[in-house]
Amino acid sequence: MQTELLVFILDIFGTFVFAISGAQAARESKLDLFGIFIIAYLTACGGGIVRDICLGATPPAGIQNWQYLVTTLCSVACVLIFKSLIEKIQFPIMIFDALGLSLFSVAGTQKALFMGFNYQVAILLGVLSAIGGGILRDVLLGKVPVVFRKEIYASAAFLGSSIFALAFYLDIHWSIGTWIGVLACFVVRYLSIRNKWNLPTL
Amino acid sequence: MQTELLVFILDIFGTFVFAISGAQAARESKLDLFGIFIIAYLTACGGGIVRDICLGATPPAGIQNWQYLVTTLCSVACVLIFKSLIEKIQFPIMIFDALGLSLFSVAGTQKALFMGFNYQVAILLGVLSAIGGGILRDVLLGKVPVVFRKEIYASAAFLGSSIFALAFYLDIHWSIGTWIGVLACFVVRYLSIRNKWNLPTL
Amino acid sequence: MQTELLVFILDIFGTFVFAISGAQAARESKLDLFGIFIIAYLTACGGGIVRDICLGATPPAGIQNWQYLVTTLCSVACVLIFKSLIEKIQFPIMIFDALGLSLFSVAGTQKALFMGFNYQVAILLGVLSAIGGGILRDVLLGKVPVVFRKEIYASAAFLGSSIFALAFYLDIHWSIGTWIGVLACFVVRYLSIRNKWNLPTL
Repeated sequence: MQTELLVFILDIFGTFVFAISGAQAARESKLDLFGIFIIAYLTACGGGIVRDICLGATPPAGIQNWQYLVTTLCSVACVLIFKSLIEKIQFPIMIFDALGLSLFSVAGTQKALFMGFNYQVAILLGVLSAIGGGILRDVLLGKVPVVFRKEIYASAAFLGSSIFALAFYLDIHWSIGTWIGVLACFVVRYLSIRNKWNLPTL
Repeated sequence: MQTELLVFILDIFGTFVFAISGAQAARESKLDLFGIFIIAYLTACGGGIVRDICLGATPPAGIQNWQYLVTTLCSVACVLIFKSLIEKIQFPIMIFDALGLSLFSVAGTQKALFMGFNYQVAILLGVLSAIGGGILRDVLLGKVPVVFRKEIYASAAFLGSSIFALAFYLDIHWSIGTWIGVLACFVVRYLSIRNKWNLPTL
Repeated sequence: MQTELLVFILDIFGTFVFAISGAQAARESKLDLFGIFIIAYLTACGGGIVRDICLGATPPAGIQNWQYLVTTLCSVACVLIFKSLIEKIQFPIMIFDALGLSLFSVAGTQKALFMGFNYQVAILLGVLSAIGGGILRDVLLGKVPVVFRKEIYASAAFLGSSIFALAFYLDIHWSIGTWIGVLACFVVRYLSIRNKWNLPTL
């Protein structure tokens, strides 16, 4: 129960932070108010929507539940009202983003496994939940997705998903798997930000 | 019955006009015959296809019904045969496009509500039906979707969808809701074209 | 039985070749290791994934079956290890790519018809299976999809799909339809490469 509540809070929190990153990018690309809102919404919920479509869980949670929409509206309001503040606190935002990444990857894997799909589906869709929104944001803004080019980002999501899947396989209680997975993803991502780690280009 | 027939006619009509806008944009981008056809088809049917996928209504109507395909073929033929004429009548085409927008947004909301989904799903997917095709067109042609940047376009679709959803909630007969929704969306869109209204960028 | 095994082998083979083309394009765009893998995977499996989503066959085969993932990993390894070799053998790779195209178009049509959908759905989704991956690859790399601009590519896929659908309609044994469809698509594509045929731009 404790864990369920925490997962819900972190889910909304991740949505909020992802939507902030989307709204900021859209504002920098000179989109209008509606464009900013759509990009923020798709950055926050797009990964989960594609995951749910792949799982056949329609309509996707990101479309059906009002919490995501309201959270996105709050993010857009924050970006528009506190413009200069948000530009100053990039480092904290990256930390929150890392939290969102960690939680979305584990939550996506969880959903697929609880619906009875195999480990490969669960891990692939866990990673997709975490990075899909950012990919949509970049494609809609006419850029090559940054996740394909820089930093340990998707790889951290992959780690988090895999650890949860492994814990599930080993029949460890799911709340323990959740926390270890989230923590591992967050630590790797945090270290890669601090130390400017990148994957090699070849 | 009267209304059903009219809705069908307007649906085909909206498909035709949207496909014209897609075929024109594709021709300007120097695509080949096949590319022009695909962009025309996705501009006309893409929004509805994504809506149906989100609703779990597979295969999507735009793929299953021959009317949409044949309508698209006619549009492409018109664009190729009457090139110079079509370039001259941009204003009427914008008016037809506004009609397509109005109808698609209300029709998308209708479909979701008739299938039993909640109001938020219905409004979001109504707007998506109306603007999804244009977004696909622009992304495939390597542009930032124009709907995110200029004019009262998606906002008009949002108005139409919301009015139909409100009428549905108030238990007003659906054909009345349809007409008020379509009319409201069309009038707002028409005024924004005439007066060059835009949403603010921020 | 013979045919089923052959179809499976060709499916894996097509996946392998498509993934090679994706991995190469991603490497040229300076993506990192993860980006190369994702682009390779989506080039090979993206068309089939979208097809399965449109058919309501979730989770898509490309996500559920380990063979595709392992094949993609092998392709990426080949591209990274045999860089210079692969650049030298562009012509053989185009031939393999033509084989992949032929098989994917027929296999996609087959799947839709065997699931009981109509001929239009089957042909549209057959073509989508064959060209969808390449479209995703180009969009994610920020390019207008090459299939819309050059060469007889999608048209060859359309021919293969249509021939299989016709054979199915005429109640010819499916393995015969498969081979004629694959052969026709392959021959047209091969001739268009050799003779540098293109569709007209208009």
